Amino acid sequence: MQRRDFLSQAGASAGILLTSSLGSPVFPAKVPPARKLGVALVGLGNYSTRQLAPALQETELCRLAGIVTGTPAKAEAWKEKYNIPEKSIYSYENFEQIKYNPDIDIVYVVLPNSMHVEYTIRAALAGKHVICEKPMALNVAECKEMIATCREAGVKLSVGYRLYFEPHHQEVRRLGTEKIYGAVKMMETSLGFSMADPTVWRLNPKLGGGGAIMDLGVYAIQGARRVIGELPVAVTAQGYIRDKTIFKDIYETMLFQMEFPGGAISNSTTTYTSYVDRLYATTGYRWFGLQPAFNATGATGDSSEGKIEFKTPAYQQIRQMDAFAKSIMDNTEPLASGEEGMKDLRIIEAIKQAADTGKRVEIDWKS
Amino acid sequence: MQRRDFLSQAGASAGILLTSSLGSPVFPAKVPPARKLGVALVGLGNYSTRQLAPALQETELCRLAGIVTGTPAKAEAWKEKYNIPEKSIYSYENFEQIKYNPDIDIVYVVLPNSMHVEYTIRAALAGKHVICEKPMALNVAECKEMIATCREAGVKLSVGYRLYFEPHHQEVRRLGTEKIYGAVKMMETSLGFSMADPTVWRLNPKLGGGGAIMDLGVYAIQGARRVIGELPVAVTAQGYIRDKTIFKDIYETMLFQMEFPGGAISNSTTTYTSYVDRLYATTGYRWFGLQPAFNATGATGDSSEGKIEFKTPAYQQIRQMDAFAKSIMDNTEPLASGEEGMKDLRIIEAIKQAADTGKRVEIDWKS
Repeated sequence: MQRRDFLSQAGASAGILLTSSLGSPVFPAKVPPARKLGVALVGLGNYSTRQLAPALQETELCRLAGIVTGTPAKAEAWKEKYNIPEKSIYSYENFEQIKYNPDIDIVYVVLPNSMHVEYTIRAALAGKHVICEKPMALNVAECKEMIATCREAGVKLSVGYRLYFEPHHQEVRRLGTEKIYGAVKMMETSLGFSMADPTVWRLNPKLGGGGAIMDLGVYAIQGARRVIGELPVAVTAQGYIRDKTIFKDIYETMLFQMEFPGGAISNSTTTYTSYVDRLYATTGYRWFGLQPAFNATGATGDSSEGKIEFKTPAYQQIRQMDAFAKSIMDNTEPLASGEEGMKDLRIIEAIKQAADTGKRVEIDWKS
Repeated sequence: MQRRDFLSQAGASAGILLTSSLGSPVFPAKVPPARKLGVALVGLGNYSTRQLAPALQETELCRLAGIVTGTPAKAEAWKEKYNIPEKSIYSYENFEQIKYNPDIDIVYVVLPNSMHVEYTIRAALAGKHVICEKPMALNVAECKEMIATCREAGVKLSVGYRLYFEPHHQEVRRLGTEKIYGAVKMMETSLGFSMADPTVWRLNPKLGGGGAIMDLGVYAIQGARRVIGELPVAVTAQGYIRDKTIFKDIYETMLFQMEFPGGAISNSTTTYTSYVDRLYATTGYRWFGLQPAFNATGATGDSSEGKIEFKTPAYQQIRQMDAFAKSIMDNTEPLASGEEGMKDLRIIEAIKQAADTGKRVEIDWKS
């Protein structure tokens, strides 16, 4: 028997059911180390298929234990490929039954942005810890509701920020926040790809919530926040729609600028017109950067002092999901928390307002 | 005798004096090929000392023949180092006498921005062809006056745009304008360096005319214009001053966005806070770029299809000055013409207005 198989079997038989103050079943903060936490993926699109499921074959503290899908053919294929028991396969209608399944500790919401709030709350009320894909929700109000519900349900909430755990990004965070090359003064962070299929949910304002800035903006925003270690105090933004046959009521391209309290400034491009994927930071006479920077298949780093190179696992989500599993086991606050996700939505709201009004928008971090 | 010495001597004895309709002496459009045109540098600062004078030792169609300086010690040092005859050394007071000097064909104005208009006009009225450093002037009105005066005086006017003749920039122009990787949709062009000396003329609004956008903006603007081969129809811009003890009445950092008629957009950073020097263009799925891009010591190129590498001369200004000399010899319009320089000033004026007002500014190319 392979070690992985052994751990999977051990995990499947080690579930312990408790009941939270809301009457939902939850797992205790401490889990026997031999037991991998069970993850149920909600939504079996590209990201689940090509990234999360393969990553969950490599994770050490959690494993693919269940799926939630509205497509019976997908359920059948996944059941066979990943040896998922019938009892851990749910549809969107019977999703609530997941609360009675001791094999599922974590629900990973991989649905269109507009459905994040609903499924995060349903998962929390079912007593499951939640990872929600980025952007966390459509707006700050939804984020608040998600965070409060998870807190009341006694479950942990994390946002699918894989780059928090990626070595090149950890290195630019270190170079920036520890002022290794001096204090960072300017940053450029940009992400874009060609999105010409009008049927994609990301282009539907109701499902995606706002196009390139919602989808790609979190990366560009986080890239700058990560390097400087501060929250922006004001933003300006420029929204563009070139192809009105495809882009209806959402900006195809959003450029934005962030002002940080220490005086640093960032300038960012997010676009659905074309490929761009880079991060640059400069401290006066020295600089560091990544290109590619944000995509899921790996970063490459360079600097005024030489290359930035790290060996990385095949899937960035391995570390992300294991870190969340560990925070559950240790009962610590997840690094990529719901609060972190809400900060990005607050910035995105300010960017949208700045683009819509053409005015500089100050961000109120107290509200 | 070395070939260079021979050509210099041949040039010194081959001057032919004509008189233009304004009564100023001018050289004929056709110059005997053996004769190198004589260049007089006006202003012996860093750029003349470290770039132009060494470059003029390598040029094939022109040569360093005279200097104009207000510092007698500099005159003495240059006279000795470059073997410049006493009669070809001028002060700012007796500069007009240059019109009687047949060894000087071209006056190269390398003075603070605010003095470009005066010395370009004085040189033109002295019947000399003119290269004026970039930015060409403080505003469009000055550019118009410079262009008109040179036209009426029958002399050619060029702007010191060394990158028009730099192989990496010629290649990104080819890739962009000929749509080699497809039509360019987004560009990022940025230039910055750390400028912390408050005594530098570039930081004096009266001499420099406006800080980073005047000094570095021409590179970022030209980078995008070069790739797309179009003139922008509208701009937005964000100006920042962080250190008010150094930066008085000029923006320390200027970010700006340009909209091109074909739908392409550029996003640019210019700053005196820190080092940044890069150009990026993307066509959908493919991209190309330079980093470093704009500095005088050489560019390095990369693309989705592989490296962009060219052997380049030690000084970019060799090709620039020889190209201007050839346009004089052939009586053709210089590539880096005054009209080209004025276009950049028109864009800079729009960018300043956009930063001052916080509003998008459309550019009227008809006025």
